[in-house]
Amino acid sequence: MELIDGNQIASAIIAELKAEVANLKGRKPCIALVRVGNDPASLSYVAKKEKTAAEIGLTSRIILPPETVTQDELFALLDQLNADPAVDGILVQSPLPKHINEVAVFRRVSPTKDVDGFNTLNLGKIAQEDETGFVACTPAGIMELLKRSNVDLKGKHVVVVGRSLIVGKPVALLALQKKAGANGTVTVCHSATANLPAITRLADVLIAAIGRPEFVTADMVKPGVVIIDVGINRLPDATKKSGFRLVGDVQFPTVSKLASKITPVPGGVGPMTVAMLMQNTVKAYRLQTAH
Amino acid sequence: MELIDGNQIASAIIAELKAEVANLKGRKPCIALVRVGNDPASLSYVAKKEKTAAEIGLTSRIILPPETVTQDELFALLDQLNADPAVDGILVQSPLPKHINEVAVFRRVSPTKDVDGFNTLNLGKIAQEDETGFVACTPAGIMELLKRSNVDLKGKHVVVVGRSLIVGKPVALLALQKKAGANGTVTVCHSATANLPAITRLADVLIAAIGRPEFVTADMVKPGVVIIDVGINRLPDATKKSGFRLVGDVQFPTVSKLASKITPVPGGVGPMTVAMLMQNTVKAYRLQTAH
Repeated sequence: MELIDGNQIASAIIAELKAEVANLKGRKPCIALVRVGNDPASLSYVAKKEKTAAEIGLTSRIILPPETVTQDELFALLDQLNADPAVDGILVQSPLPKHINEVAVFRRVSPTKDVDGFNTLNLGKIAQEDETGFVACTPAGIMELLKRSNVDLKGKHVVVVGRSLIVGKPVALLALQKKAGANGTVTVCHSATANLPAITRLADVLIAAIGRPEFVTADMVKPGVVIIDVGINRLPDATKKSGFRLVGDVQFPTVSKLASKITPVPGGVGPMTVAMLMQNTVKAYRLQTAH
Repeated sequence: MELIDGNQIASAIIAELKAEVANLKGRKPCIALVRVGNDPASLSYVAKKEKTAAEIGLTSRIILPPETVTQDELFALLDQLNADPAVDGILVQSPLPKHINEVAVFRRVSPTKDVDGFNTLNLGKIAQEDETGFVACTPAGIMELLKRSNVDLKGKHVVVVGRSLIVGKPVALLALQKKAGANGTVTVCHSATANLPAITRLADVLIAAIGRPEFVTADMVKPGVVIIDVGINRLPDATKKSGFRLVGDVQFPTVSKLASKITPVPGGVGPMTVAMLMQNTVKAYRLQTAH
């Protein structure tokens, strides 16, 4: 069994981006990070993104509207950023306060600056295999993990468990694409799937993105499977100082014995998302400045 | 074995639309049909669409740019139609002449008038399960055939053979949706799929959209399967006056013996596409006029 080390792969990508950005003449790519209010998780995510951007040599612009910001005010702010030629990528950190329609906000970000890949148009571009679009960071990170672990999906059966808009559906469309590394036969399962274990056992590559702790057990996979575990769940654990431990959607101790390659949780898909956000920002810069 | 009669189902939909349109006050929904040049197939398709629109009580506006029209001229024409409040839906008949970028033309049609459902934004909306979008006529027709044949996909394994942008991918996304009638477990196979018969034999519902005559044979399906045959292929046949006969992607004589329900070719999916185009046009009218 080989561990797919997301930390190591993400670090390699960040180092590559740093070298790439160092070679750019003129202004550096700029990401605008919009964080509404003071949600503790958002605080830590945005800080991590800001830090990684700085490490690569990107400029970041941090915008902190108060918790009480109205949707219209947020729209006006996004319109300004959309129109600003010095801003290449825009990220609106979720979750947003309940009085704001998150989907509407994501749609307000210009498709050409949508480095989070949540805009409807960029979803359509994945289906169209149009490389000018932006792929959301988690599915993009999964594909990159597979590529850099020498897993070619061609002729393989890829089973995705979970049909969410930010992971399951886009990663299914990516695995189906005609490009090198993809060309997988793809099955998407979910809560309404009958006899799920019979289907997951067909998988050469299993992508678990359901948000249920240790849901995939050893009897649900076949020997030699490649496992990508997207889940990040907290389980109570009195032996930890924090009172909990993180587990994925896959029961790692048992499934890893059968897998040929597997991502750990934490340290698998998680670290890839920030790296992909940075990659998207450099791409947005190149598309907008034709550099 | 029950035949899924596309002609009959399409006629029922057209009758329903006719009744619906008769009840509309004020101007009737209007579809603009753009046919470039004189391709014989296009001539017959556009004539059929015009006739069906008239039957339902829709207005149609036929625009016939010459074969030599430039892409910019076509864009200008579409911009006019996009801006015209008297036009609800716009259809640009394919194929277009080789000097014109078809995808660019489809994208130029306003998403709110894109009754053909080829605009990138409307593809994204299928993934988002956003009902304000337009679904392309063939996948929409397939879902309607299933619904009106009382085939509920929930808990069923739907295998789609073919990953095209106009059939395979959108119908896979539709079958996956959380709405009533959908909720299928969905597998998409294609030319790079290894051991295809083993996968198609898993299908409770098999959607064949590969464009290869009689490709799906009896050994590739399980007894009781529901078959939707999207293919329309010509096979040479000296006994026919035309010199050919039409067959689907499924070998009907053998597979129909195993199927619980099956669409014939012709007379299955084919007739549904025009009905769905008309349904989309009425929907576009309602969205634009808030009627």
